[in-house]
Amino acid sequence: MKPKNAFYAQSGGVTAVINASACGVIETARKHEDRIGKVYAGRNGIIGALTEDLIDTGKESARNIARLRTTPGGAFGSCRYKLKGLEQNRAQFERLIEVFRAHNIGYFFYNGGGDSADTCLKVSQLSDRLGYPLQAIHVPKTVDNDLPETDCCPGFGSVAKYVATSMREAGIDVASMAKTSTKVFVLEVMGRHAGWITAACGLAAEREGDAPHLMLFPEIAFDREMFLRKVQSSVERYGFCAIAVSEGLKGADGKLLTDSGGRDAFGHAQLGGVAPLIANLIKEQLGYKFHWAVADYLQRAARHIASKTDVEQAYRVGEAAVKYALKGMNAVMPSIVRVSDKPYKWKIGVADLTKVANREKMMPRNFISDDGFGITAKCRRYLAPLIAGQDYPPFRNGLPEYVRLKNVAVPRKLAGEFVL
Amino acid sequence: MKPKNAFYAQSGGVTAVINASACGVIETARKHEDRIGKVYAGRNGIIGALTEDLIDTGKESARNIARLRTTPGGAFGSCRYKLKGLEQNRAQFERLIEVFRAHNIGYFFYNGGGDSADTCLKVSQLSDRLGYPLQAIHVPKTVDNDLPETDCCPGFGSVAKYVATSMREAGIDVASMAKTSTKVFVLEVMGRHAGWITAACGLAAEREGDAPHLMLFPEIAFDREMFLRKVQSSVERYGFCAIAVSEGLKGADGKLLTDSGGRDAFGHAQLGGVAPLIANLIKEQLGYKFHWAVADYLQRAARHIASKTDVEQAYRVGEAAVKYALKGMNAVMPSIVRVSDKPYKWKIGVADLTKVANREKMMPRNFISDDGFGITAKCRRYLAPLIAGQDYPPFRNGLPEYVRLKNVAVPRKLAGEFVL
Repeated sequence: MKPKNAFYAQSGGVTAVINASACGVIETARKHEDRIGKVYAGRNGIIGALTEDLIDTGKESARNIARLRTTPGGAFGSCRYKLKGLEQNRAQFERLIEVFRAHNIGYFFYNGGGDSADTCLKVSQLSDRLGYPLQAIHVPKTVDNDLPETDCCPGFGSVAKYVATSMREAGIDVASMAKTSTKVFVLEVMGRHAGWITAACGLAAEREGDAPHLMLFPEIAFDREMFLRKVQSSVERYGFCAIAVSEGLKGADGKLLTDSGGRDAFGHAQLGGVAPLIANLIKEQLGYKFHWAVADYLQRAARHIASKTDVEQAYRVGEAAVKYALKGMNAVMPSIVRVSDKPYKWKIGVADLTKVANREKMMPRNFISDDGFGITAKCRRYLAPLIAGQDYPPFRNGLPEYVRLKNVAVPRKLAGEFVL
Repeated sequence: MKPKNAFYAQSGGVTAVINASACGVIETARKHEDRIGKVYAGRNGIIGALTEDLIDTGKESARNIARLRTTPGGAFGSCRYKLKGLEQNRAQFERLIEVFRAHNIGYFFYNGGGDSADTCLKVSQLSDRLGYPLQAIHVPKTVDNDLPETDCCPGFGSVAKYVATSMREAGIDVASMAKTSTKVFVLEVMGRHAGWITAACGLAAEREGDAPHLMLFPEIAFDREMFLRKVQSSVERYGFCAIAVSEGLKGADGKLLTDSGGRDAFGHAQLGGVAPLIANLIKEQLGYKFHWAVADYLQRAARHIASKTDVEQAYRVGEAAVKYALKGMNAVMPSIVRVSDKPYKWKIGVADLTKVANREKMMPRNFISDDGFGITAKCRRYLAPLIAGQDYPPFRNGLPEYVRLKNVAVPRKLAGEFVL
């Protein structure tokens, strides 16, 4: 009997290391060709399954698959597309089964965050509920670091390293100029609900007075007056003030600061970006010259400054997903288990998907300092090992050289189009 | 007779490699202790000279001076402070002479851009005009790459490498997501008047369809309709559109798109925020989902991804400045002379400061494509070698380890305070 094929898809926002997980999945599957036939990737994620737009990863050389480990972004395309429940949209699930059956797919590897874990869980139930034999394994990925049941999430460590490095570098810049020029610098980072990335900026500070002096977390309602007092105190004490702010910063009313319907001096709607908003508030109230930066996609795509720990973990969860599938497991996610902080030791564990789907892990309150503007020693102990080690990509002509796969389509077997 | 001491100061916006020039000055001076006594650095640039706030670099270990080569920002502090003409503020120049005489200073090394070259030129004339014997050498530095009489400017190559790397990485990210999510990405970069940094983003694209698809230069008046057509065409053709935009982008009326009326110490408009403006325009007119980033100080402080070529050139102009001083030269600037493109060969030359001060080197029109939205092969040939090679700083605990000097003050010899 021909071995079952596998389906692999990338889901949600991509990261600097999601392709390292793909690499782990594909390389490990290739070592077990007696048990797993082809690895088909969904072009643009789950949409590729629904539309029968599959990529034959078997057409890629071993060398190019290995190069996925050092390439950011989603090599097969990702998507933001959440499957509805089986009751709400049975046709979607029947279509998935139709495509999987046509291509002899028995393994489903889904590489994503919380929403994706929910999709993966639903797919894992197809076997029981619609009678199609399938094992679904979730491969964790999210820069937000907010998946439960795992010590950390692949993708986060590299963003953490990038934002801490950037904050340190920009902080040194501002410190140089503060005497006569910029006194306040604001860096906006990702993390809509959980402040993990904002907290990671705090790793840049090792000594009293180092940037960042203040962090604004989505978990802590913005206290304007207290904040302005802290900014002033930092400028008076250290000559400058460097601030990390989460894109998800909220006011006491629970609304995003950037959602306030604010208008600029010309009556134009606020263009978005909490960093300029915070910077302008400081200018208006305290008069300090400011600069601000919004890292946006630069932070989650920055493979050039990836964390070696993160890359290794991303690869290992991909590898483990295949191993778990080969053991006959379903509805699980390889997790990262911390064994010790110092020296940092970790191993791969296993989490039940029902405990992962649709749950967000917020920062514990004791990771944030009492005043709400900094991180605690406990937080630092947690974060520090996640950014350890460098894992530079190869360079050519002065720039990182990233692989672009051929992404050869698998011939279609089904007639007709599926409307998403 | 005791040898004359040297004064070294950093001026204007700092860069990832200005300290490499400081390293070149100090290490070279230390090799000639028979001719140059101490190297005193101005704390916060020229202000340190006016206020007699000098730093004794002789108190720093050889190891820490060597580490300046891998440390961004201005290790002694920089400033935005332009000396007026001798006629307008004779007191300033007399004060400089008073301080220099008190500390036996006979060499003046000024590390900055165009405005600073003007200050350096004025100081070089003190010998003739006020009878104080002094040699003034300008050490070129500016991320804007707009100094004349030199093939390129130390500081630029590293920003160029950073923005090209960031554009490549973010472009790959957007390409992954474009099917169902973000279709337009806008990266705002520095460059008030000259589009060199914007052009450098173009190095990220090696193949048809690669990011960036469009570049908006300060030299080309923004043509809204043409731009929107190009954006639409890129999205239709490649699935997405990545755009690099200069902070200094101007409309047909010659005004900055972002002009909000704020001015800095030199009377320059306070910039920042053209990326959200462009992104919102696209959203309004074409409806595409967008993301935008503003790199701001991250780009000029990014020592972690510095160009090896740039670091080497920064060091060498510092070294040459001291050698020129020892040859008795005055009112000159070590320049970078390109000998050949491929293989890239360069040497240090010498430029007359009267030809450098207060002049900006714009991008030649033939570096910009006919349609105004891209770079030409000629531009690419010029830029490519400037980002060549990596020169990673040392890391500790997952982050770049940058030196902080002791910056021990030289005991004051003058009574009274000088009011700036």
